[in-house]
Amino acid sequence: MARPSKRAGESPVLAAFGQAVRAARLSRGMSQETLADQAGIDRSYMGGIERGEHNLALINIDKIASALDMKISALMLFAQL
Amino acid sequence: MARPSKRAGESPVLAAFGQAVRAARLSRGMSQETLADQAGIDRSYMGGIERGEHNLALINIDKIASALDMKISALMLFAQL
Repeated sequence: MARPSKRAGESPVLAAFGQAVRAARLSRGMSQETLADQAGIDRSYMGGIERGEHNLALINIDKIASALDMKISALMLFAQL
Repeated sequence: MARPSKRAGESPVLAAFGQAVRAARLSRGMSQETLADQAGIDRSYMGGIERGEHNLALINIDKIASALDMKISALMLFAQL
Protein backbone atom coordinates (compact mmCIF):
# COMPACT_ATOMS: atom_id res chain seq x y z
CA MET A 1 0.00 0.00 0.00
CA ALA A 2 1.31 3.39 -0.94
CA ARG A 3 0.12 5.27 2.09
CA PRO A 4 -1.04 4.51 5.57
CA SER A 5 -4.71 4.59 6.28
CA LYS A 6 -7.02 4.26 9.20
CA ARG A 7 -9.81 2.13 7.81
CA ALA A 8 -9.20 2.48 4.09
CA GLY A 9 -10.15 -0.57 2.14
CA GLU A 10 -11.02 -2.47 5.26
CA SER A 11 -14.77 -2.17 4.92
CA PRO A 12 -16.78 -2.97 1.81
CA VAL A 13 -19.64 -1.02 3.35
CA LEU A 14 -17.60 2.17 3.60
CA ALA A 15 -16.22 1.60 0.11
CA ALA A 16 -19.69 1.10 -1.37
CA PHE A 17 -21.02 4.18 0.39
CA GLY A 18 -18.12 6.31 -0.78
CA GLN A 19 -18.47 5.14 -4.35
CA ALA A 20 -22.18 5.94 -4.31
CA VAL A 21 -21.55 9.43 -2.96
CA ARG A 22 -19.00 10.04 -5.67
CA ALA A 23 -21.25 8.69 -8.43
CA ALA A 24 -24.27 10.68 -7.21
CA ARG A 25 -22.14 13.82 -6.95
CA LEU A 26 -20.70 13.40 -10.45
CA SER A 27 -24.14 12.72 -11.91
CA ARG A 28 -25.13 16.14 -10.58
CA GLY A 29 -22.03 17.81 -12.02
CA MET A 30 -20.90 18.81 -8.54
CA SER A 31 -17.28 19.16 -7.52
CA GLN A 32 -16.13 17.45 -4.36
CA GLU A 33 -15.52 20.89 -2.88
CA THR A 34 -19.05 22.05 -3.62
CA LEU A 35 -20.55 18.94 -2.08
CA ALA A 36 -18.37 19.30 1.00
CA ASP A 37 -19.29 22.96 1.39
CA GLN A 38 -23.00 22.36 0.88
CA ALA A 39 -22.94 19.49 3.37
CA GLY A 40 -20.91 21.51 5.84
CA ILE A 41 -18.20 18.86 5.90
CA ASP A 42 -14.47 19.46 5.74
CA ARG A 43 -13.23 19.08 2.15
CA SER A 44 -10.39 16.76 3.06
CA TYR A 45 -12.71 14.59 5.12
CA MET A 46 -15.14 14.41 2.19
CA GLY A 47 -12.36 13.10 -0.01
CA GLY A 48 -11.73 10.37 2.51
CA ILE A 49 -15.42 9.52 2.65
CA GLU A 50 -15.51 9.03 -1.11
CA ARG A 51 -12.45 6.78 -0.84
CA GLY A 52 -14.17 4.69 1.83
CA GLU A 53 -11.68 5.72 4.48
CA HIS A 54 -14.05 7.18 7.05
CA ASN A 55 -16.59 5.41 9.18
CA LEU A 56 -18.82 8.45 9.16
CA ALA A 57 -21.75 8.91 11.48
CA LEU A 58 -25.44 9.22 10.77
CA ILE A 59 -25.61 13.00 11.11
CA ASN A 60 -22.95 13.40 8.44
CA ILE A 61 -24.62 10.80 6.25
CA ASP A 62 -27.77 12.90 6.49
CA LYS A 63 -25.90 16.09 5.62
CA ILE A 64 -24.39 14.47 2.53
CA ALA A 65 -27.70 13.03 1.38
CA SER A 66 -29.36 16.41 1.85
CA ALA A 67 -26.63 18.16 -0.13
CA LEU A 68 -27.23 15.63 -2.91
CA ASP A 69 -30.98 16.23 -2.61
CA MET A 70 -31.52 12.57 -1.82
CA LYS A 71 -33.11 10.66 1.01
CA ILE A 72 -30.66 8.61 3.04
CA SER A 73 -32.56 5.48 2.02
CA ALA A 74 -32.17 6.37 -1.67
CA LEU A 75 -28.47 6.98 -1.25
CA MET A 76 -28.07 3.63 0.53
CA LEU A 77 -30.07 1.89 -2.16
CA PHE A 78 -27.86 3.50 -4.78
CA ALA A 79 -24.88 2.10 -2.84
CA GLN A 80 -26.57 -1.31 -2.85
CA LEU A 81 -26.49 -1.26 0.92
CA MET B 1 -35.46 16.61 31.72
CA ALA B 2 -34.86 13.86 34.19
CA ARG B 3 -31.35 12.99 33.17
CA PRO B 4 -28.49 14.60 31.32
CA SER B 5 -27.83 13.49 27.78
CA LYS B 6 -25.25 14.03 25.11
CA ARG B 7 -27.30 14.35 21.97
CA ALA B 8 -30.64 13.10 23.15
CA GLY B 9 -33.54 14.75 21.47
CA GLU B 10 -31.32 17.10 19.57
CA SER B 11 -31.54 15.34 16.24
CA PRO B 12 -34.74 14.22 14.56
CA VAL B 13 -32.62 11.98 12.34
CA LEU B 14 -31.17 10.09 15.28
CA ALA B 15 -34.61 9.91 16.89
CA ALA B 16 -36.21 8.54 13.72
CA PHE B 17 -33.45 5.98 13.28
CA GLY B 18 -33.70 4.83 16.87
CA GLN B 19 -37.47 4.48 16.69
CA ALA B 20 -37.17 2.44 13.50
CA VAL B 21 -34.61 0.12 15.07
CA ARG B 22 -36.86 -0.39 18.07
CA ALA B 23 -39.95 -1.00 15.94
CA ALA B 24 -38.14 -3.43 13.64
CA ARG B 25 -36.71 -5.26 16.64
CA LEU B 26 -40.08 -5.54 18.36
CA SER B 27 -41.74 -6.73 15.16
CA ARG B 28 -39.25 -9.60 15.20
CA GLY B 29 -39.92 -10.38 18.84
CA MET B 30 -36.30 -9.65 19.73
CA SER B 31 -35.17 -8.25 23.04
CA GLN B 32 -32.84 -5.27 23.05
CA GLU B 33 -30.18 -7.50 24.56
CA THR B 34 -30.51 -10.07 21.79
CA LEU B 35 -30.25 -7.41 19.10
CA ALA B 36 -27.23 -5.88 20.78
CA ASP B 37 -25.53 -9.24 21.10
CA GLN B 38 -26.28 -10.29 17.53
CA ALA B 39 -25.03 -6.93 16.24
CA GLY B 40 -21.95 -7.07 18.44
CA ILE B 41 -22.84 -3.77 20.05
CA ASP B 42 -22.71 -2.96 23.75
CA ARG B 43 -26.16 -3.40 25.31
CA SER B 44 -26.12 -0.03 27.01
CA TYR B 45 -25.06 1.69 23.81
CA MET B 46 -27.88 -0.07 21.94
CA GLY B 47 -30.37 1.37 24.41
CA GLY B 48 -29.02 4.83 23.68
CA ILE B 49 -29.27 4.23 19.95
CA GLU B 50 -32.95 3.34 20.27
CA ARG B 51 -33.49 6.50 22.30
CA GLY B 52 -31.84 8.60 19.58
CA GLU B 53 -28.95 9.53 21.83
CA HIS B 54 -26.06 8.25 19.76
CA ASN B 55 -24.77 9.56 16.46
CA LEU B 56 -23.70 6.10 15.45
CA ALA B 57 -21.41 5.41 12.52
CA LEU B 58 -22.03 3.51 9.31
CA ILE B 59 -20.30 0.30 10.38
CA ASN B 60 -22.57 0.04 13.40
CA ILE B 61 -25.61 0.91 11.30
CA ASP B 62 -24.66 -1.98 9.05
CA LYS B 63 -24.25 -4.34 12.01
CA ILE B 64 -27.69 -3.43 13.32
CA ALA B 65 -29.35 -3.80 9.93
CA SER B 66 -27.69 -7.20 9.48
CA ALA B 67 -28.82 -8.35 12.90
CA LEU B 68 -32.36 -7.33 11.91
CA ASP B 69 -31.90 -9.15 8.58
CA MET B 70 -32.55 -5.91 6.71
CA LYS B 71 -30.65 -3.91 4.14
CA ILE B 72 -29.50 -0.53 5.43
CA SER B 73 -31.64 1.11 2.76
CA ALA B 74 -34.72 -0.76 3.99
CA LEU B 75 -34.05 0.23 7.57
CA MET B 76 -33.63 3.87 6.53
CA LEU B 77 -36.82 3.72 4.48
CA PHE B 78 -38.62 2.26 7.49
CA ALA B 79 -37.29 5.24 9.48
CA GLN B 80 -38.59 7.56 6.76
CA LEU B 81 -35.06 8.81 6.25
